[in-house]
Amino acid sequence: MRRSTQAIDACLASLAVALILLIAAALNPVLAQEPLPSWNDTPAKTRIMDFVKATVTEGGEGYVAPVDRIAVFDNDGTLWSEQPYYVQLGFVLDRVKALAPRHPEWKTREPFKSVLDGDLKGIAKGGEKGMVELMMATHAGMTTDEFTKIATDWFASSKHPKTGKPYTEMTYLPMRELLDHLRANGFRTYIVSGGGVEFMRPVTDQLYGIPPEQVVGSTIATEYDLAGDVPVLKRLPKIDFIDDGPGKPVGINKFIGLRPIFVAGNSDGDYEMMRWTTAAKGPSFAMLVHHTDATREYAYDRDSAFGKLDKALNEAERRNWLVVDMKNDWKKIFAFEQ
Amino acid sequence: MRRSTQAIDACLASLAVALILLIAAALNPVLAQEPLPSWNDTPAKTRIMDFVKATVTEGGEGYVAPVDRIAVFDNDGTLWSEQPYYVQLGFVLDRVKALAPRHPEWKTREPFKSVLDGDLKGIAKGGEKGMVELMMATHAGMTTDEFTKIATDWFASSKHPKTGKPYTEMTYLPMRELLDHLRANGFRTYIVSGGGVEFMRPVTDQLYGIPPEQVVGSTIATEYDLAGDVPVLKRLPKIDFIDDGPGKPVGINKFIGLRPIFVAGNSDGDYEMMRWTTAAKGPSFAMLVHHTDATREYAYDRDSAFGKLDKALNEAERRNWLVVDMKNDWKKIFAFEQ
Repeated sequence: MRRSTQAIDACLASLAVALILLIAAALNPVLAQEPLPSWNDTPAKTRIMDFVKATVTEGGEGYVAPVDRIAVFDNDGTLWSEQPYYVQLGFVLDRVKALAPRHPEWKTREPFKSVLDGDLKGIAKGGEKGMVELMMATHAGMTTDEFTKIATDWFASSKHPKTGKPYTEMTYLPMRELLDHLRANGFRTYIVSGGGVEFMRPVTDQLYGIPPEQVVGSTIATEYDLAGDVPVLKRLPKIDFIDDGPGKPVGINKFIGLRPIFVAGNSDGDYEMMRWTTAAKGPSFAMLVHHTDATREYAYDRDSAFGKLDKALNEAERRNWLVVDMKNDWKKIFAFEQ
Repeated sequence: MRRSTQAIDACLASLAVALILLIAAALNPVLAQEPLPSWNDTPAKTRIMDFVKATVTEGGEGYVAPVDRIAVFDNDGTLWSEQPYYVQLGFVLDRVKALAPRHPEWKTREPFKSVLDGDLKGIAKGGEKGMVELMMATHAGMTTDEFTKIATDWFASSKHPKTGKPYTEMTYLPMRELLDHLRANGFRTYIVSGGGVEFMRPVTDQLYGIPPEQVVGSTIATEYDLAGDVPVLKRLPKIDFIDDGPGKPVGINKFIGLRPIFVAGNSDGDYEMMRWTTAAKGPSFAMLVHHTDATREYAYDRDSAFGKLDKALNEAERRNWLVVDMKNDWKKIFAFEQ
C-alpha cells in the first residue's frame, strides 16, 4: 500500500511538473520578469503599462487585434543618444578622415576641409547642401554589401565622443525594456528614423531586437548592375527618400502598410507620425522622450541643433501625448551606468 | 489495492496526455500534415523539399540561420493567375466604368473610350502612356484609407472573366502550400510584385497568410496632409517606384534589407531578383512557375503579353533554377477544382 501511495505521489508530482511546463510553454511571453525595471514607479510607467494591458485584454474597449499591434519608434534621441551630434554624423566625420588620403583636394575644399580640421562650426556653416555633399561622399559609390561591411566595421570600433563608450552602448535601457514589453504582448516593433536605413540595419537586431526588415529610414537610390557576371546593387549619389517630419507617416505607409497604434519620438521630426498614429479610429498611444537629465545624459529641447523639440512639446498636453521626463521617470538611462 | 492501481493508471494516463500536449506544443510547426499535398511526386517536389530540409538541418552544409531565411514570391502568374490580364488591370477596367458617370469626357477620350467600349486592343494601342493614365485616374486622388476601402470592396465583388470565380479564389493551391511549408520551417515569406503595393495589401493575409508589411510592390507618391484637423495621406498621380525587372532586387533591398535565399517567379520580370538571390554566398534556391496547362489554367511563355517568360527560361538550366511544369508537377491548381 505504501508503495502504491508513493507511486501515486510520484506520478502526481510528475503530472504537476508536466502541467506547469505545459502552462509555461503556453504563457511563455507573459511569464517574463517584471516589465520596465529601469522605469521609476511614476505615472508615466503606469500609463504605458495600462495601455499595453488594455490592448491585450479581450472584450475590453482598449483591445486591439494582434495584426494591428504595430509600434513605431524614432531612433536618434528616442532609442539612442543623438548628442553631441547624430551617430550617423559621427560615422560621416570618421569616414571623411578615412577616405581623405584618396582625396587630397579635400584638404582645401569645403565642407571636407572643416571635417578634416575638426571644425564643427565650419561644417554647420555648409548647411544642408554641405551635409548632402558629405553624405554622398561617404554613403554612395559602393555596393550595398560593401556599405554594410563599412558600417558594421565602424560600429565595432568607434566611440562616443563624450562617454568613450561604443556607440552601440549608447542606447536607452528603459526604451529597450519597453520594446521587449511591447513584443511580449504581441506588438511588432519598428524603427522609423530620419537616419539612413542601411546605416542602421546592420546593428538594430543586436541593439534592440529589431531585425533589418523592421527598420524604416531614409534611403539613397540604388541600381541593379552586373560586376562581371555577378549581380550587385550599386549605391548612387542621389537621395531617394527622406524619412523625416511629414515623410515619416509616408514611410510607415510605404514600408509597413498599416497604421501604428503606438508611437515614440522625441523631436518635432516625429510630430507628423505622432499625429497620424493618434488619428487612428481605435486605441492609440503616443509618447515623447524629453531630454531633461544633463548629468546622466543631456538636457535639451527647443533650441537644440539635433532633436529640436518645440511644437510637439507645446501640443503634447492637449493631445494627451505622454511626455517622459528622463530625469524623473527613468531609474537608469544607460546599461553601463553604475 | 485495486483502487490505488486504478489511481495510478488514471494518473499515468493524465501524465501521458499532458506530455503529449507538451510535446505537441513544442513541436507544433513540425506536426502539420504532410507538406505540399497538391504537388505530384515528381523531381520538382523533391528538390524543393530537400532544399528546405537542408536549411533547417543544423550542422549540415545547407543549413541557414533563421534570421536569413527570407523567401520572396512574385505575385502575378506565380501565386495567382495573370490571364487573360493582370488582376489589377481588371480592377482598372472596373473602376473606369464605375467612375465614368463623373467623367462624361471619357466617352470620347482615349484610353478611357476603349475601356468603356470593352475594346482590349484599343487599350493595348495606348501603350505604356495610356496605361499610366488609366492607373492614375483610378489609383490616385484619394486618401490611402479611401483607396484601401475601394480595393477591398472590389475584391469582395469582382469575378474572374473566364472562371467566374472571385479573383481571390484564383490563387495556386500548390504555391499556398509551399508558402505554408516554408513558414513552418522558419522562413519569412514576402511578396515582391510589379503590382501596386496598396492594391495587394488588403487581401494578401487572407489569400496567402502574408501580412501587409511583407508585401513589396510598386508605389505611387503619397503626401501627408491635413483634412481639416485630421491627418491623412493623399495618393498623388505620380509613380514613386516600379518594382519590376531590375527594380525587384532594388525593392527587396529597400524594403527588406536582407538578401533572400529562396525566390519564386514566372516571368522575365523576375529574372534580376532570381539572379540576385542565387548570387548569395550560402545556399539559395530559385524556381520558375511554367504555365503549361491550357486545360486547367493557361499555357503561355515566350509570346505572352502578360508574364512573358523567355530569357529566364533560356538560362534556367545552366543556372540550376527549378522549372515547375504546372501540368505535370501539380495535382491540383486551384482549390475550387473537383
